[in-house]
Amino acid sequence: MREDIPAHFTIADAQVAIIGLGLMGGSLAAALSSMRVCRQVVGIARRPSSLTTARSLRFIHRGTTDLAEGIREADIVVLATPVRDILEKLGQIGPMMKNDAIVIDVGSTKTAICGAMEAMPSHVQPIGGHPMCGKESSGLTMAEPGLYQDRVFVLAPLARTSARTLALMQEMVRGIGARALILEPAYHDRMVAAISHLPYMVAVTLVAAAEQVAQGDDMPWRLAAGGFRDTSRVAAGSIPMMMDILMTNRQPILETLYAAQAQLATLTRLLEDNDDEALREALENARQRRVEIYT
Amino acid sequence: MREDIPAHFTIADAQVAIIGLGLMGGSLAAALSSMRVCRQVVGIARRPSSLTTARSLRFIHRGTTDLAEGIREADIVVLATPVRDILEKLGQIGPMMKNDAIVIDVGSTKTAICGAMEAMPSHVQPIGGHPMCGKESSGLTMAEPGLYQDRVFVLAPLARTSARTLALMQEMVRGIGARALILEPAYHDRMVAAISHLPYMVAVTLVAAAEQVAQGDDMPWRLAAGGFRDTSRVAAGSIPMMMDILMTNRQPILETLYAAQAQLATLTRLLEDNDDEALREALENARQRRVEIYT
Repeated sequence: MREDIPAHFTIADAQVAIIGLGLMGGSLAAALSSMRVCRQVVGIARRPSSLTTARSLRFIHRGTTDLAEGIREADIVVLATPVRDILEKLGQIGPMMKNDAIVIDVGSTKTAICGAMEAMPSHVQPIGGHPMCGKESSGLTMAEPGLYQDRVFVLAPLARTSARTLALMQEMVRGIGARALILEPAYHDRMVAAISHLPYMVAVTLVAAAEQVAQGDDMPWRLAAGGFRDTSRVAAGSIPMMMDILMTNRQPILETLYAAQAQLATLTRLLEDNDDEALREALENARQRRVEIYT
Repeated sequence: MREDIPAHFTIADAQVAIIGLGLMGGSLAAALSSMRVCRQVVGIARRPSSLTTARSLRFIHRGTTDLAEGIREADIVVLATPVRDILEKLGQIGPMMKNDAIVIDVGSTKTAICGAMEAMPSHVQPIGGHPMCGKESSGLTMAEPGLYQDRVFVLAPLARTSARTLALMQEMVRGIGARALILEPAYHDRMVAAISHLPYMVAVTLVAAAEQVAQGDDMPWRLAAGGFRDTSRVAAGSIPMMMDILMTNRQPILETLYAAQAQLATLTRLLEDNDDEALREALENARQRRVEIYT
């Protein structure tokens, strides 16, 4: 018989087990521990060295490489690995979790993950999550307790998610300094395709096109100033993470790529045609939008 | 009879007249004045208020709205207006300048400008210039003496440019903390098309595509994190400046746009085809290139 979570339970009483101690998982562990949001943080990682590091940084109270052992006593299980690894683990961990334990993830796409969560055993409480933050550098050494501060943390409850689970996750999000925003998975995926996955594809396009034009000459990189640096920054992102995002959010991302192809073709044609007025209008529209967003 | 510049003349003896007190011209004035690189800085602007501001900030020693009056005594004339305005002024200022006076510009494209410089009267010493720096915010209020610090400052001498003129401009570049790099105009324009003008077009494409996908919904902008912000940053750049760059560097920029279209089409096809391996390789190539450039 599994242990039940009591009704008067708050986030401060929770033992949180975090699977994956990279940038996102490590930063979550750091935030939960340093801000004393929950009772205990357990780290679960493949490599013992990650656990040693996380312990020495006081990000976790204890660590283990054994998945079943790490989540057995957990009130909340957080999956913080690349998306396709989250999908795989969602198929395994249900039977290892205690009654009414919550499982949440921090993966960047939600439709596939929330679909896999629907199929979990009924004694667990799944809910999708996606904090809108990150860096181009990944890994535990880049983790920091302030990563989530003032960021939007999307919560994607399923039909089966209890109100109490949602409330507890809102408490956790507030506890680490983030702002909870409830979104439906498919809608979330369309939105992040446009503002997170497309920028990545566009940055990769820029680097590849500049390289193609340079034809092995390194002068472009010697001349590159802030414009190239910023526009290409996210092209340095983690490939395993991005591959999983692309492959689990293909259709929404393809829609944004078709839009980008159309916009790029239009800008090219206006320049080919020397159409001063229409080109100026297209650039002005984008400039106004960009200025509006960030003021 | 025009006054000659003596042979023992150094940059410290020079009166420098700067036409245009925006971000680039204002920062150059600020750097020359605060680091005491030259004897005197004269500011020339259309609006008297710009001159008042530049004087109160001690960026210039004196200012005038009268072009001929401003450059009559100048040893060095710097054109710091948008490229098409530079082209227009190059056709006017020759007869107003003294013997052996140097004219340099800080415009972002060099072929059209150096072509117009070739046609100047033989008593002046023209040389193209392009400091590789900038901000997405333009104008005198954004100017700062440190803008050129440690940046590459391209010098594009013409066949008619004397060695002494080149040496004096190298002195001035060193004086404001920048690093001189001598490039041929057409080559410069191909390089900056790839690493400066293409990033702008790509950033505009991103904003326009995201807006197209959003269809008036403002949720994408609420979710936008660092990736979108950085990748779209240069889309907020000055339209008059960018229009002049696009229109005076059309063919090299079109070449980069064709390369970008091809790369974007390839990435799109690989995702359509679910080609995990080839997609991973394309992303990995871009990632490695980006990491190499900035380490």
